[in-house]
Amino acid sequence: MKNIYILSIGKVYRKSNNLYFIDKDKNKRVIPIEGINAIYIMNKVSLTSNAIQMILNKGVPVHFFKEDSKIGTFYYLGSLLPKQKKPSGKVHIEQVKAYINVEKRSEIALEIVDAIRYNMIKVIEKYREVYDYTKTLRNLDVRKEFEQKMTDWKDATNVIRGIESNIWVIFYEALDKILKTYKLERRTRRPPKNEANTILSFSNALLYATVLNEIYKTHLDPTVGFLHEPYEKGRFSLVLDLAEPFKPIISCRILIWLINQGIVKPEYFKKDLMGVMLNENGKRVVIKEFESRIRETIKIKGKGRKSMLIFIRKQAYNLEKALVEDTKFKAFRLVY
Amino acid sequence: MKNIYILSIGKVYRKSNNLYFIDKDKNKRVIPIEGINAIYIMNKVSLTSNAIQMILNKGVPVHFFKEDSKIGTFYYLGSLLPKQKKPSGKVHIEQVKAYINVEKRSEIALEIVDAIRYNMIKVIEKYREVYDYTKTLRNLDVRKEFEQKMTDWKDATNVIRGIESNIWVIFYEALDKILKTYKLERRTRRPPKNEANTILSFSNALLYATVLNEIYKTHLDPTVGFLHEPYEKGRFSLVLDLAEPFKPIISCRILIWLINQGIVKPEYFKKDLMGVMLNENGKRVVIKEFESRIRETIKIKGKGRKSMLIFIRKQAYNLEKALVEDTKFKAFRLVY
Repeated sequence: MKNIYILSIGKVYRKSNNLYFIDKDKNKRVIPIEGINAIYIMNKVSLTSNAIQMILNKGVPVHFFKEDSKIGTFYYLGSLLPKQKKPSGKVHIEQVKAYINVEKRSEIALEIVDAIRYNMIKVIEKYREVYDYTKTLRNLDVRKEFEQKMTDWKDATNVIRGIESNIWVIFYEALDKILKTYKLERRTRRPPKNEANTILSFSNALLYATVLNEIYKTHLDPTVGFLHEPYEKGRFSLVLDLAEPFKPIISCRILIWLINQGIVKPEYFKKDLMGVMLNENGKRVVIKEFESRIRETIKIKGKGRKSMLIFIRKQAYNLEKALVEDTKFKAFRLVY
Repeated sequence: MKNIYILSIGKVYRKSNNLYFIDKDKNKRVIPIEGINAIYIMNKVSLTSNAIQMILNKGVPVHFFKEDSKIGTFYYLGSLLPKQKKPSGKVHIEQVKAYINVEKRSEIALEIVDAIRYNMIKVIEKYREVYDYTKTLRNLDVRKEFEQKMTDWKDATNVIRGIESNIWVIFYEALDKILKTYKLERRTRRPPKNEANTILSFSNALLYATVLNEIYKTHLDPTVGFLHEPYEKGRFSLVLDLAEPFKPIISCRILIWLINQGIVKPEYFKKDLMGVMLNENGKRVVIKEFESRIRETIKIKGKGRKSMLIFIRKQAYNLEKALVEDTKFKAFRLVY
């Protein structure tokens, strides 16, 4: 299942049983419709009527983005969404039931935070220079910490988010010790203030788009999250939730790889008063790395060999299944 | 706030600050973007990149339909949906809470059924020949009937749907006595078997599309209905719920008007083995009538003078407000 990223100006059209993209310099490329997971449009792209009907009939979601230096990297404009073939009301009802039940909600949120911690360790444990950080994260027992700090169920999610924010502080510090040249210094967003931050923001945006797309394939309601508040403005809280366990192992590893292998070059960036942004070539480099990481097949203990994209999808289905069957949700952990 | 219906083959493009539609015979028409409520595309229509970006930026939803004689009239393919600016998780949570609470759910469902009954009376009371039917509907006390028939809360929604189905039987019988030429005989769908049924199906489809569009403007979850089951296949149960009170006064009145004024002509239909369908001219006639009815301003007691489209929108907002503020939902009634 391919993801199609369109970064150039051009047109998507249909010819016989395929989609094609033609850019403004008349370069054509085929988009084999049967194998498409999603199309991400990040520039000015026209769609012909036959292309639209084919895309909708085949159930392929198309997500539109636009660059805006005030917000950083690019922002989500909207989606062309095929009609859902199966009903989703049932799952939405179970999802809200789990959200309302503070114990169930906390259990899901804690599971996500613990998976983040576990995956953070997998990223940094091979670097001897940050051994202390690895040790700190290993010794941190998310559920025990929660039990100690939580005195009133009313504060449960605040306590969990406090624990989460704490592990990110530890992890970002370790990350800066690992990065050889460009450093994060501190995490900046909207817009990112330096090169490392802009790469991380762009990778995260690709990850969020991927997770949103996988959620649209399930019957989950993207607006109702467990770790993140469904009351947050303009963001899909469940997308944020389900992206979290993958952030260290996808986005942060892309950052380490691109910087420490010397792949990142000054000419991949454009700077303005607002902050630092990737240009089209810079974006291509990050997308290439992102794609190769979500395509890469990995053998996970007890889960077999699958691509990371499939593990992302499976995590969303696992949540749906856990909600409908009222069983425990297991977030993704990089267990070799 | 205009609705744009595109029935011809063509292209939507942007020029300066407007959208334009050009058909295959090069006829142009302007689509003033600022005043658009929604765009309904019912044929093969291309969208240029600038048109897509403008549509998404202005927050205008575009709904795609395709004709299929097996299903009848046309069917919904999907939508181009702008990103929601405000969060919706909060409302989804309140909506499911009301759904789970069988008393609240029944209260909303009964309110809808009673509004259908009330509006049915408004349609038929001026026809002396169906006086008995009007009387029957007037004497029917939906809430009392519910209290009498309901013995176990588990069966509450089944009992309510039984009452609803009963009033439709009465109403369709009356409708057939009012119709001068083409008759329903019995209500047939997927596909409709005769002219009257195909007009009614097409009007209802326009009404559902309008209600779906208004629901997308609120934060309501279209999949969680109260009278209709959220478990139903491939249909938005809340859209069905909120369209119900308007069906007698919009769709059924269109049917009476078009037939009894002799506007309907045999050449507006195409027949095949499956059933009877409207052709493009026939559809234009129904859309014209539909549009003039939802544009028409009406003075409703205590609600002022507004167009029917605004009353449809207000009904959706009323439900959202009632759910969030935990007050009683009032469905639309045609009270002069």
